[in-house]
Amino acid sequence: MTRFECDYTQGAHPRIMQRLLETNMEQTSGYGNDEYCERARDHIRKACEAPDAAVHFLVGGTQTNTTIIAALLRPHQGVLSAETGHIAGHETGAIEATGHKVLTLPSEDGKITAAQVRRAYDEHWNDATHEHMAQPGMVYVSQSTENGTVYSLAELTALSEVCRELSLPLFVDGARLGYALAAEGNDVTLADLARLTDVFYIGGTKVGALMGEAVVIVNEALKRDFRYLIKQRGGLLAKGRLLGVQFETLFEDGLYMDISRRAVSLAIQLRDAVKEMGFGFLHDSPTNQQFPILPNELLNTLAQKHTFSTWTTTDEQHTAVRFCTSWGTTQEEMDELIADLRAAQ
Amino acid sequence: MTRFECDYTQGAHPRIMQRLLETNMEQTSGYGNDEYCERARDHIRKACEAPDAAVHFLVGGTQTNTTIIAALLRPHQGVLSAETGHIAGHETGAIEATGHKVLTLPSEDGKITAAQVRRAYDEHWNDATHEHMAQPGMVYVSQSTENGTVYSLAELTALSEVCRELSLPLFVDGARLGYALAAEGNDVTLADLARLTDVFYIGGTKVGALMGEAVVIVNEALKRDFRYLIKQRGGLLAKGRLLGVQFETLFEDGLYMDISRRAVSLAIQLRDAVKEMGFGFLHDSPTNQQFPILPNELLNTLAQKHTFSTWTTTDEQHTAVRFCTSWGTTQEEMDELIADLRAAQ
Amino acid sequence: MTRFECDYTQGAHPRIMQRLLETNMEQTSGYGNDEYCERARDHIRKACEAPDAAVHFLVGGTQTNTTIIAALLRPHQGVLSAETGHIAGHETGAIEATGHKVLTLPSEDGKITAAQVRRAYDEHWNDATHEHMAQPGMVYVSQSTENGTVYSLAELTALSEVCRELSLPLFVDGARLGYALAAEGNDVTLADLARLTDVFYIGGTKVGALMGEAVVIVNEALKRDFRYLIKQRGGLLAKGRLLGVQFETLFEDGLYMDISRRAVSLAIQLRDAVKEMGFGFLHDSPTNQQFPILPNELLNTLAQKHTFSTWTTTDEQHTAVRFCTSWGTTQEEMDELIADLRAAQ
Amino acid sequence: MTRFECDYTQGAHPRIMQRLLETNMEQTSGYGNDEYCERARDHIRKACEAPDAAVHFLVGGTQTNTTIIAALLRPHQGVLSAETGHIAGHETGAIEATGHKVLTLPSEDGKITAAQVRRAYDEHWNDATHEHMAQPGMVYVSQSTENGTVYSLAELTALSEVCRELSLPLFVDGARLGYALAAEGNDVTLADLARLTDVFYIGGTKVGALMGEAVVIVNEALKRDFRYLIKQRGGLLAKGRLLGVQFETLFEDGLYMDISRRAVSLAIQLRDAVKEMGFGFLHDSPTNQQFPILPNELLNTLAQKHTFSTWTTTDEQHTAVRFCTSWGTTQEEMDELIADLRAAQ
Repeated sequence: MTRFECDYTQGAHPRIMQRLLETNMEQTSGYGNDEYCERARDHIRKACEAPDAAVHFLVGGTQTNTTIIAALLRPHQGVLSAETGHIAGHETGAIEATGHKVLTLPSEDGKITAAQVRRAYDEHWNDATHEHMAQPGMVYVSQSTENGTVYSLAELTALSEVCRELSLPLFVDGARLGYALAAEGNDVTLADLARLTDVFYIGGTKVGALMGEAVVIVNEALKRDFRYLIKQRGGLLAKGRLLGVQFETLFEDGLYMDISRRAVSLAIQLRDAVKEMGFGFLHDSPTNQQFPILPNELLNTLAQKHTFSTWTTTDEQHTAVRFCTSWGTTQEEMDELIADLRAAQ
Repeated sequence: MTRFECDYTQGAHPRIMQRLLETNMEQTSGYGNDEYCERARDHIRKACEAPDAAVHFLVGGTQTNTTIIAALLRPHQGVLSAETGHIAGHETGAIEATGHKVLTLPSEDGKITAAQVRRAYDEHWNDATHEHMAQPGMVYVSQSTENGTVYSLAELTALSEVCRELSLPLFVDGARLGYALAAEGNDVTLADLARLTDVFYIGGTKVGALMGEAVVIVNEALKRDFRYLIKQRGGLLAKGRLLGVQFETLFEDGLYMDISRRAVSLAIQLRDAVKEMGFGFLHDSPTNQQFPILPNELLNTLAQKHTFSTWTTTDEQHTAVRFCTSWGTTQEEMDELIADLRAAQ
Repeated sequence: MTRFECDYTQGAHPRIMQRLLETNMEQTSGYGNDEYCERARDHIRKACEAPDAAVHFLVGGTQTNTTIIAALLRPHQGVLSAETGHIAGHETGAIEATGHKVLTLPSEDGKITAAQVRRAYDEHWNDATHEHMAQPGMVYVSQSTENGTVYSLAELTALSEVCRELSLPLFVDGARLGYALAAEGNDVTLADLARLTDVFYIGGTKVGALMGEAVVIVNEALKRDFRYLIKQRGGLLAKGRLLGVQFETLFEDGLYMDISRRAVSLAIQLRDAVKEMGFGFLHDSPTNQQFPILPNELLNTLAQKHTFSTWTTTDEQHTAVRFCTSWGTTQEEMDELIADLRAAQ
Repeated sequence: MTRFECDYTQGAHPRIMQRLLETNMEQTSGYGNDEYCERARDHIRKACEAPDAAVHFLVGGTQTNTTIIAALLRPHQGVLSAETGHIAGHETGAIEATGHKVLTLPSEDGKITAAQVRRAYDEHWNDATHEHMAQPGMVYVSQSTENGTVYSLAELTALSEVCRELSLPLFVDGARLGYALAAEGNDVTLADLARLTDVFYIGGTKVGALMGEAVVIVNEALKRDFRYLIKQRGGLLAKGRLLGVQFETLFEDGLYMDISRRAVSLAIQLRDAVKEMGFGFLHDSPTNQQFPILPNELLNTLAQKHTFSTWTTTDEQHTAVRFCTSWGTTQEEMDELIADLRAAQ
């Protein structure tokens, strides 16, 4: 079986494993106060052209989302998010468990617009009984989104402008940020993210690390006491060096982008093959997630050798599914998948 | 510098690293639904003589404590704990952040007694205004404790009996469980823990793993839906296999106990040397943590080559400090530490 | 100005005021442990034909909703509710502040169906990743609803059956329960509610009391420790007698229903007049809330003498508004309102 | 039976009842947006010499404490309080239910000192692992305290100075504020409280009202959005006018102080009689709560005609009890209590 169901089926990129092995016996302070973390932070600040950013390493995405959101909001505030946002549907109510409502906005493609944010804000404040409703307190977007789509620089700039005008901090969930940076047609850089958002994170778990997310905080108010918040939400790894070593390896000479580009390029091969075969897609994705709509029979045949995720039934004969590529996907595996797709047609 | 300040200064035991390397390219399902986790669960159930126990792997201790405690309590209940308990003082209010009060009991040695639990329970229920107070809803103890001490089988049995009589679930924080099992004079087994408690965990982070805690749930009511709770609190590792591989390695042929015994034996060498030199201890510990009370001058000299944690000032000339051993501590390092102690005297 | 904007613009029914005055100097225990509360509980149990029900008095609706919902759910569970439900949109995220997600179901008329509950349940449990989503843990409905509509006995029975089959406790928010019981065509009794639900409350604030909601708990598991939960959420009134006196007065000889019937009958006069004038309604309500869609010019004229709530703009010339009647609305006021409506046409 | 067990055994001062009756049929907006509330706010601002203060009315004390504390703290912060503080022991973990730890300081007399606050702050920040502990984020004191004692102006000024130096907001729980203002030897005014604190409240429930607490916010940051927070915590009374009418009556011409002075003067008669009889006190209180230590036999006799609260057993023959006076206590009742005490001796 070759697994395409998600982008975290394997361990870490071999260079990361090698580095973890080499440094295994070194003795360092715990909780991220070590030289590996320090160097990783410097690499990330440099990559983001944000010399004053605070950089923290957490273990996983749900932790990171709850820690940041609960840190930014006052108790009566909620977070605006696409209804497709990871925090809205796939974190077992973790945001609500910190006391906050997720205020969802409709979305077809996984993205929300500056105009939607402004409308939600206006609707709230124009309502005479607004004190009886959770107040929009910040904006959450994912890059790339849960649908595999990517915000353009123009879209992100518009969101940033409306957020700043309305004093709503903007948070970008970058669990799959590498694949957005490497997406076909992408025009957003890490430096843009640091310039346009209040806080974002650079996903490691889904982009070649064993685990780990690097939070980049630009907003001064959020920097304060952030380590307390990480500790309280269970995200402060005792052997923090492990995260430092991984992000140092990913960022010291471009490995993060190499991994991302490779995975995206393999995904695009799949997309093009599916298109050529005449099938459509649930979402139009330029990243490592592809959502083809395929005949059920074909999927049954395919499932004998490959795993994928079932997304939604589109009609009686067809199902939309998801294939992901990652650092570990090989050209051979993709060739075989495409060959099997063609053969099963 | 040799680091003795805590038991998580280095990576993982080499056999664990080796196994992570060997399996790095294997593709598995995420979130703990893989064969490594399955086998690790089996090993642990066998070691605990608890074939029906549910076993789950979480990343770190604070996560594990909050997940278990919040799962067990109703909103108006609190958790009884020694005032020295990790949840009472060293988790940035993580338990309170889930809505629950930590009801502290005085403790000199890090332990609480069955009699204290009964008294707290009776005081609560005998108070005419008990509805105005957080209700004792469960009992938390650490094994080994934050003071390095260990509950005897008799003590644990007495606690278990009173807890069952009073319908208070008993939870054992085993972040350092290996060192308790390997302690001088210990008479408690994993099977005893499974028999006497409702839930406990077997710490990996401090006993040779990169990270990871194995929760063993005996109480039927707590088993239900526990994976939701792990996910909600951010403890469900995407690449769950990593935890399975580590616990499989630790439990398939006794490595967990080998590591623990070695570390305790090195700690006892330190203890005996300190005693021989005529110094006292803050706590009388038979485990991998030693708390000698040493002259400040000696500590200044020692600090040039070794790290340790400062615990408390006992008088103007003396300070209680903590030295920890772990899987990575070598005989050479201990010999040198003891030699330097003697030389500095 | 005559106020029709809501059903809590005035104090309490004169008989309640009289009784509060008469008993003002009596000395009783606090927190609901007094004879007035005891008698009021008995009257309510009798009215509900539920001799074993636990009855508690809280001050207001938001408190009552949060207390009951947080008492019923485990941390990873959410509450199913119509998207129009009071807890979904008008309590400033109070449910989320207790840690729980409100799982909304679409609704045109303010009601949800047994089929919707079953579908939401099935969708959750059939999803392979259900542990990553908040689990449906109970069902919340309002009677009468926020739209003025009323569940029929058949609808409520169907809801109850599916809830019991799926082990989802059913909670009825009865902030306006009197107006439902007195609604045109209503076939649901208090005894039906006690038989079909796990817990419901009988609203006092909006039905003639100064304040106060009487919670009727049928579900045994929820009875336990409920006073702790009231205290924790701030709903335990020190001078609890005040609530007992009010509910005793409302329930000792039918005042609650007299008030409700009178208010509904006045509202129906308004409804019939509006219909006769040829205007439509946003919702088809047989209760004390009426939602006519009226020309903006007419509303401007009317607003000089009467208050009402603006609900929604239906087109450029028309707005849906809400008029409420209550215990205090007089026939003269209604006559004048209708006359002014006609004159302004 | 005459009830002295607490200060909320009866309804409201007759002038308040009269005013509620007179205004019962008036129609006003809900939720505190009415002229009675507006005038009451003005009276309170004047009494506090704080023209810019925000004044809000909530129903009860637990609600008020949780609303204010949760509004002031960030998630990782706790509230410093005397171990005897109402929030520490008598609110069923309500503060923890909002996510925050109560950081208790030892106290013999119910008060804490500026030096204790500084020490707790320094201990926190001087600890190398402070990020692993809940951070002191504000200070809570009661005036008068749960022990009946009163902060002097010098004590309160010292607390205020240290709080401002350390950026810790100072919150005064004034559930019994009237009795402190009327205490023997008191030198603190409402204007002092407004000058020295960030927020405090003026208790109505225990000082002559049916229910109600008036929050006075001086701190600008806390003013923002406070009505949302009241609503979320269930403290926004629908018929808000009821609270406005009561506080208007209490503050328009000095009734609040009249009530307080009368009750304190009756309590002092009891204190003097007890002293004269040669008995001691658990706490030395100049306010409406008196805590004599009396022989058990005497208490048994007394209990046949009077109620009081049992506080603590001081030795085998003696018990400390609490007697409270209130607006409703008459001279005749006090004379009889004292006569019965003397007779039973």
